[in-house]
Amino acid sequence: MEMPSPDPGVLARKHELVERLKRVLPPEAVIHDPSETRAYECDALTAYRCPPMAAILPGSTREVSDALRICSDLGAKVVPRGSGTSLAGGALPTEDCVILGVSRLNKVLETDYENRFIRVQSGRTNLSVTGAVEEKGFFYAPDPSSQLACAIGGNIGMNSGGAHCLKYGVTTNNLMGVTLVQMDGTVIELGGAHLDSDGLDLLGVVCGSEGQLGVVTEATLRILRKPEGARPVLMGFDGNEVAGACVSDIIKAGVLPVAIEFMDRLCIRACEDFAKAGYPDCEAMLIVEVEGSEAEIDEQLETIIEIAKKRNPVELRESKSGEESARIWLGRKSAFGAMGMINDYMCLDGTIPVSQLPHVLGRMGQMSKEYGLDVANVFHAGDGNMHPLILFDANKPGDLEKCEEFGADILKLCVEVGGCLTGEHGVGIEKRDLMGHQYSNADMEAQMLVKDVFDPEWLLNPAKVFPLSTSLSRREPIGSVAA
Amino acid sequence: MEMPSPDPGVLARKHELVERLKRVLPPEAVIHDPSETRAYECDALTAYRCPPMAAILPGSTREVSDALRICSDLGAKVVPRGSGTSLAGGALPTEDCVILGVSRLNKVLETDYENRFIRVQSGRTNLSVTGAVEEKGFFYAPDPSSQLACAIGGNIGMNSGGAHCLKYGVTTNNLMGVTLVQMDGTVIELGGAHLDSDGLDLLGVVCGSEGQLGVVTEATLRILRKPEGARPVLMGFDGNEVAGACVSDIIKAGVLPVAIEFMDRLCIRACEDFAKAGYPDCEAMLIVEVEGSEAEIDEQLETIIEIAKKRNPVELRESKSGEESARIWLGRKSAFGAMGMINDYMCLDGTIPVSQLPHVLGRMGQMSKEYGLDVANVFHAGDGNMHPLILFDANKPGDLEKCEEFGADILKLCVEVGGCLTGEHGVGIEKRDLMGHQYSNADMEAQMLVKDVFDPEWLLNPAKVFPLSTSLSRREPIGSVAA
Repeated sequence: MEMPSPDPGVLARKHELVERLKRVLPPEAVIHDPSETRAYECDALTAYRCPPMAAILPGSTREVSDALRICSDLGAKVVPRGSGTSLAGGALPTEDCVILGVSRLNKVLETDYENRFIRVQSGRTNLSVTGAVEEKGFFYAPDPSSQLACAIGGNIGMNSGGAHCLKYGVTTNNLMGVTLVQMDGTVIELGGAHLDSDGLDLLGVVCGSEGQLGVVTEATLRILRKPEGARPVLMGFDGNEVAGACVSDIIKAGVLPVAIEFMDRLCIRACEDFAKAGYPDCEAMLIVEVEGSEAEIDEQLETIIEIAKKRNPVELRESKSGEESARIWLGRKSAFGAMGMINDYMCLDGTIPVSQLPHVLGRMGQMSKEYGLDVANVFHAGDGNMHPLILFDANKPGDLEKCEEFGADILKLCVEVGGCLTGEHGVGIEKRDLMGHQYSNADMEAQMLVKDVFDPEWLLNPAKVFPLSTSLSRREPIGSVAA
Repeated sequence: MEMPSPDPGVLARKHELVERLKRVLPPEAVIHDPSETRAYECDALTAYRCPPMAAILPGSTREVSDALRICSDLGAKVVPRGSGTSLAGGALPTEDCVILGVSRLNKVLETDYENRFIRVQSGRTNLSVTGAVEEKGFFYAPDPSSQLACAIGGNIGMNSGGAHCLKYGVTTNNLMGVTLVQMDGTVIELGGAHLDSDGLDLLGVVCGSEGQLGVVTEATLRILRKPEGARPVLMGFDGNEVAGACVSDIIKAGVLPVAIEFMDRLCIRACEDFAKAGYPDCEAMLIVEVEGSEAEIDEQLETIIEIAKKRNPVELRESKSGEESARIWLGRKSAFGAMGMINDYMCLDGTIPVSQLPHVLGRMGQMSKEYGLDVANVFHAGDGNMHPLILFDANKPGDLEKCEEFGADILKLCVEVGGCLTGEHGVGIEKRDLMGHQYSNADMEAQMLVKDVFDPEWLLNPAKVFPLSTSLSRREPIGSVAA
């Protein structure tokens, strides 16, 4: 994948940059030795690697602000990084950039159960946010598969979702406020511990902006009371399309399970081998989970099972115990790991209207035959967020390129049926050159004008989100750009 | 209230402007005779009036685009207007502006029950959106008190809420996409009939932007399946603070009623006289409504009533029938009208963390004595969105000014306890000069930079949202502003 050429001027001034950064950060928080910067050369899209010029690990909003002001002065690019779990290359460095890692910003700043929020620093991991409030019976809803490792700052950057987001929404639906440090070091507050905002509500555009607008150092997050109980039901079907149609039936009926997860044969087998989850032997499987009191659970599952029966399932099994439920979810949550054990794969992330599931699953099957590459499907079906895994052989010349082409075709299909290029992984470097399929020039121009005002020199997270050629040509003083 | 001085250059070119507008709009859609433009001189904040230079009523996105391009060419200000129900002066004209009314844009463009959305033109009224889908058992959730009249375009501009938004969220939580015409006539699409967006998600910043960024002509709205049933319970208490504490208890317990409405003695009496709703004779009253199947309703109400009992209610009455429920809601929904029959009032709209309700209600009582002006309270307590009505005598010299000062003090108190200046009415002209209490200069600058890129000449909805002095000094070419 093509990356912009490094800025020789900036590389020449690396020494000056490092010295100035050391004046505002603890010495151990400024990493510049090539043997150490290598640790930051990639994120979870490991096919692409590039060691950064330096990496810094600030410990406070003040340190982030001081560091950004220096980078801004010297024209150095900055790539903000949560825990580096991006599957879209959202934290991939360039040779001439400084990685700004938020891992030391991991404190809980405030918990308020009466008003149901928690304020944390942005390097805190997703699961440890729930960890901080679960003793009192609360939880933080968005639950990406990487929740043990991924940082809240990264979740905000990518507007992350998770299996339970059908009911609770994605990050943007659970984010109340942020402290954002702009590229010039200015610190601003967006939103807060209250509903709504006065004036222009910039919180929504920061959420999902993939580090293009600033560095989030603190976040106020909505916490929810844990439901009394939850119970999944497993459904097996003899084809992808019929499972997809069943999802569409459930949503259309207006029932709102907390999760509807889809897995196809390839995934079912891999997960079963890996986690012994007791999955049935069939073409496609759904895990549908509902929450509430025992009575509410019974009532909801009755409706759902009635709907499912009309699609002639080959298996229909309610979980009988907490252990069984945990095993069912362990299988699903280990899907990416399990698939990785048997094959190289590229994980896509497109979103489509739920009613298009049967059509898109069918088309993907045809395309898989045309390209000669297998596709495994495991995804949040209830909200139409697909994660096709295209299997390829990294050692076979040309296979990666074929896989990229196939992936692009799938994402174009998502757009074609009224969906979009990403559900929760972000655009990153992976999908930047597909943005023109989603947006008209005027649509994209509006987005870039907003980028212009937050980051006039386009120093933040370079070469991501927008098509490479466009984002390179954009690095001009703002007056001439907006004229 | 001070308004900017008119632009004599633009007024002198009124004839040219009108002639050019007539070339792109049907003649009857261009209103310029002073006897007719008077119909647009105010919105629901009737204390302030100013007839516009002209009013136009385009019938399509294309006509909006053509008209805005002409206004942009001639430097004419444009005030977008839904149905003119703003309580904050959000659609108040200036002498040198063109009112752009969306009332002719009232069509349903698409309904999709499988994917649960409806696409409408922005002039369609809120209630008629539900009207278009209720036969199939669906509804559109945000329900402002003015829902019979108010337009979806206005709802989007103000990010409107309503009584049932505790459960379903406000407009931004139910808005999936818009077609936005920018001031230079460019048409862009934001969001759509799918979850999430690629790149920068500008939908959130457009929602609630009070016409500062463009004119919304079409909107894709989430529709929901109507719940099986709903049932309110009335609770009477012997003081505002104790009713406020009960709200806080319910929220803290993690129960999620669909609505928690608060009324104090003044309001209870006025509504009872007006609507004969069977309200109890007490200091403060809550209407708590839950939804679901009969079993779910019983279970939720049991928990809620148990919580309420600990606060020694003087009345605790579950609705026994659909008729009784409708009467209870009729009383609440007619509160603003009922209060208007007995007194002049100014309706405020601040939002606070729910746990602060008892404190803020207590402080308002003290301030009411200090100012010698009564305050009536009727509001969405569950989400902390307060609507204090300050009663005054419009014929008594100085009373309006005293009322404005009192109102400003209440809103400052909301900010002080961690809340914000508006929940759903917007900033408009009413609260623009209080923005500095909520935001630092850097916070406000970030908002204005975004305004700059969408509307570099600051022609859209002038003198609203931002402090008057700031927004006047801002009308410069973008290069110099952003430098």
